[in-house]
Amino acid sequence: MLRLNGPNVDNLNPNPLLMSQASQPAATIKAYVEANKDRFLSELMDLLRIPSVSADSKFKPEVQRAAEFIKQQLEAAGAENVALCPTQGHPIVFGEKIVDPALPTVLVYGHYDVQPADPYELWKSPPFEPEIRDGRIYARGACDDKGQAYMHVKALELMMRADMLPCNVKFMIEGEEEVGSEHLGDFLRDNRERLAADVILISDTGILSNEHPSITTGLRGMSYVLVDVVGPNRDLHSGMYGGAVANPINVLCDMIASLVDDDGRITIPGFYDDVAEVSDEERKAMNAAPFSEEAFKKELDVADVKGEKGYTTLERKSIRPTLDVNGIWGGYTGEGAKTVLPSEAHAKISMRLVPNQSSQKITELFTRHFESIAPKSVKVKVTPHHGGEPAVTPTDSVAYQAASKAFEEAWGKTPIPLREGGSIPIVALFEKELGLKSVLLGFGLDSDAIHSPNENFHVFNYLKGIETIALFYQHFAAMNPER
Amino acid sequence: MLRLNGPNVDNLNPNPLLMSQASQPAATIKAYVEANKDRFLSELMDLLRIPSVSADSKFKPEVQRAAEFIKQQLEAAGAENVALCPTQGHPIVFGEKIVDPALPTVLVYGHYDVQPADPYELWKSPPFEPEIRDGRIYARGACDDKGQAYMHVKALELMMRADMLPCNVKFMIEGEEEVGSEHLGDFLRDNRERLAADVILISDTGILSNEHPSITTGLRGMSYVLVDVVGPNRDLHSGMYGGAVANPINVLCDMIASLVDDDGRITIPGFYDDVAEVSDEERKAMNAAPFSEEAFKKELDVADVKGEKGYTTLERKSIRPTLDVNGIWGGYTGEGAKTVLPSEAHAKISMRLVPNQSSQKITELFTRHFESIAPKSVKVKVTPHHGGEPAVTPTDSVAYQAASKAFEEAWGKTPIPLREGGSIPIVALFEKELGLKSVLLGFGLDSDAIHSPNENFHVFNYLKGIETIALFYQHFAAMNPER
Repeated sequence: MLRLNGPNVDNLNPNPLLMSQASQPAATIKAYVEANKDRFLSELMDLLRIPSVSADSKFKPEVQRAAEFIKQQLEAAGAENVALCPTQGHPIVFGEKIVDPALPTVLVYGHYDVQPADPYELWKSPPFEPEIRDGRIYARGACDDKGQAYMHVKALELMMRADMLPCNVKFMIEGEEEVGSEHLGDFLRDNRERLAADVILISDTGILSNEHPSITTGLRGMSYVLVDVVGPNRDLHSGMYGGAVANPINVLCDMIASLVDDDGRITIPGFYDDVAEVSDEERKAMNAAPFSEEAFKKELDVADVKGEKGYTTLERKSIRPTLDVNGIWGGYTGEGAKTVLPSEAHAKISMRLVPNQSSQKITELFTRHFESIAPKSVKVKVTPHHGGEPAVTPTDSVAYQAASKAFEEAWGKTPIPLREGGSIPIVALFEKELGLKSVLLGFGLDSDAIHSPNENFHVFNYLKGIETIALFYQHFAAMNPER
Repeated sequence: MLRLNGPNVDNLNPNPLLMSQASQPAATIKAYVEANKDRFLSELMDLLRIPSVSADSKFKPEVQRAAEFIKQQLEAAGAENVALCPTQGHPIVFGEKIVDPALPTVLVYGHYDVQPADPYELWKSPPFEPEIRDGRIYARGACDDKGQAYMHVKALELMMRADMLPCNVKFMIEGEEEVGSEHLGDFLRDNRERLAADVILISDTGILSNEHPSITTGLRGMSYVLVDVVGPNRDLHSGMYGGAVANPINVLCDMIASLVDDDGRITIPGFYDDVAEVSDEERKAMNAAPFSEEAFKKELDVADVKGEKGYTTLERKSIRPTLDVNGIWGGYTGEGAKTVLPSEAHAKISMRLVPNQSSQKITELFTRHFESIAPKSVKVKVTPHHGGEPAVTPTDSVAYQAASKAFEEAWGKTPIPLREGGSIPIVALFEKELGLKSVLLGFGLDSDAIHSPNENFHVFNYLKGIETIALFYQHFAAMNPER
């Protein structure tokens, strides 16, 4: 029997009982992955060689190439009606395999676009020349999300070849997740029929560790803005004008500093109004999850953690909202010393949101507040970049239980349900537009360094993920009565 | 009779009495400049074509080229013993014309290096392709300091050709002023004999306006530092870690914001200890100088000024110390949105100093304070860039009076003695190493946009400056009894 409320701490060691349940399908799946693992890896590396950076328009043709690669591989795996669906931005790859309309349908979501790879100089091997070192594939997108999305393509191939696809499956792999899935909403609204399904399956999250597999049951939303502070109409000599004219960088620093108080609380009026407080039970369960703050600090090489007063590190990075400056620039940043009083300063600021905050409302609150605290001596502009809503996924659904069973069979351990700090805005979007719940069957690890130099994905997790996904289908179909 | 204490407000219109004093030498000088002005301009433009940016090592060969250009032109003008004196950095151009060892000697200082020209895209015409528009020469260094230094070379040529050099002159034109004149001190110490003189003449400052010529009698010093704030050992995903780990950009903003309080006072302990308060008389005189705050705001397109409480704009930019961030950078600054929690953030910070603050002491106070306010969750590093001491020049010296008379003859107006906000650290250095006072005979205007895109120098000021300099020598020699 599964325990779904909080970490199953008694049950973190391989459970003979569970292992012994290893079914015939499990053995077949294991064998197929073992027999094809080299090809599975080399195909993924071909995909990783395509620099599909959606944030930077100069990579547009490469993003298109990545979409076409996914299309070809889906067809090769046995999907039908595979097509690149055009959007106002990058195309969405659709494909499906309808075994029997009477059977339940799984809608797989993933994304083939990646984060920018800079700073390039910090990569041990070039971000778009994948390399396997110590059992890890190093490349931008290795985990987020090319590696995790491609596991589903290979799981389909496996089930088609082994004639063990027990229900219908549809694929929807987009190319704008890293820039806010701007055009996904329209696509969903225009394709409700075509996307009809019983559940959405997404691998774009992580597990606690390979010793403690987990399933993400909550995600933070996001509000992301660009702020511009403009002072004098030109760069000035800091000697001739310094002290008498507002310096946009100093002003920007003042404004940013004022956004978070000494207790780590965000000072924007109304910011916390809609925050759903998490029950003491859930917080207790969350903090019972295996986690060492010492190891956490050591791994990041920081002498201390920093965050909102009254919450643990695990809580701060999952159930509490944040405000982080993701980038800042202004004035002279070249070699040597230039005594300039610059005309402008800029920053990119993101706020991670938790249930039941609204991305649009928070962006409005931020904008109003930021404009209100600007001194008369400067002009400020706030440009909303993109946002996403927070989400919580149910742990009592058939799909979640199927996912949990799949983990037990493949990993020999019951996965821990866990709230995560990242954002997959589309989880909330799917619920709104398609009325469908999602299962977040992710296989990443914190050490994968996604969004950072030297992003990587463990070969073990990639192959084990394919196995787990194929098993999910077996349990999901078995637990779903025909309609 | 000259009024040296404060602006001579009764005397701002051309004074017939003064004009009528126009001497024979004055007429000769005027005629020579008029006859040669086209060549004077084209020669300066040749110098301006050399991108001698001392702050950026990739321009090193160009800085050398500029030094050689000055050397050739000094020889052509009639200077003797002209040489490029090597230093640990860029060479110093020396040259001299000894008329009679018994006569007084003027030591001319200037610099042939320039500030970096970026941002290039804001220049109407390329910074190193000088262009004359509406009576102004547009180019990096047009005023600061190639244009102003070259006036002295042409004044020498004029006096040699017209056989009216009434005393000895020495030239010392360096190539590291924009990076703190790092190696000038050693050069002075090693060449005391060779540089022996009665006064130092420098044109690297400005005048209030062409209607209100002025002579700079005070300058601010400077302390310039680079600060690095380092948090986690790598860039992190702001969703997975945000809220639990110190963000170096947010921390840097907090620290910078705390350096100046709401009254515009710098909070570094001991920062104001050595500040010499200026007498009410001098403040009164200073504020009597023609200045319109409305025009000042309009010209910079700012709705309001900003600065230290209790001081006027003229005071804030001249007799009060400042703290300005000259550059800041960290995280993702490219196109689009990247949700990174960066590993590092950086800023270049300069403090303008006033008598009797010491650059070294202020740098030490800043460093100690900045390190003391850093939270445990980050590492900070402060790297001193370069500094310079503030200075006040006497208005009762023979040299100052000669300069004032030269202005009267050339401009028909008595110049206003004025304290300026910029820094020419070498003024204090000369006093310390050579025991010599300086006269700051500058001809720039605020609208010259030095250190900014579209730096320019008025053709009128360039030619009038040559005239004024030649007249200075006539008066200085006449007022100096032979020794």
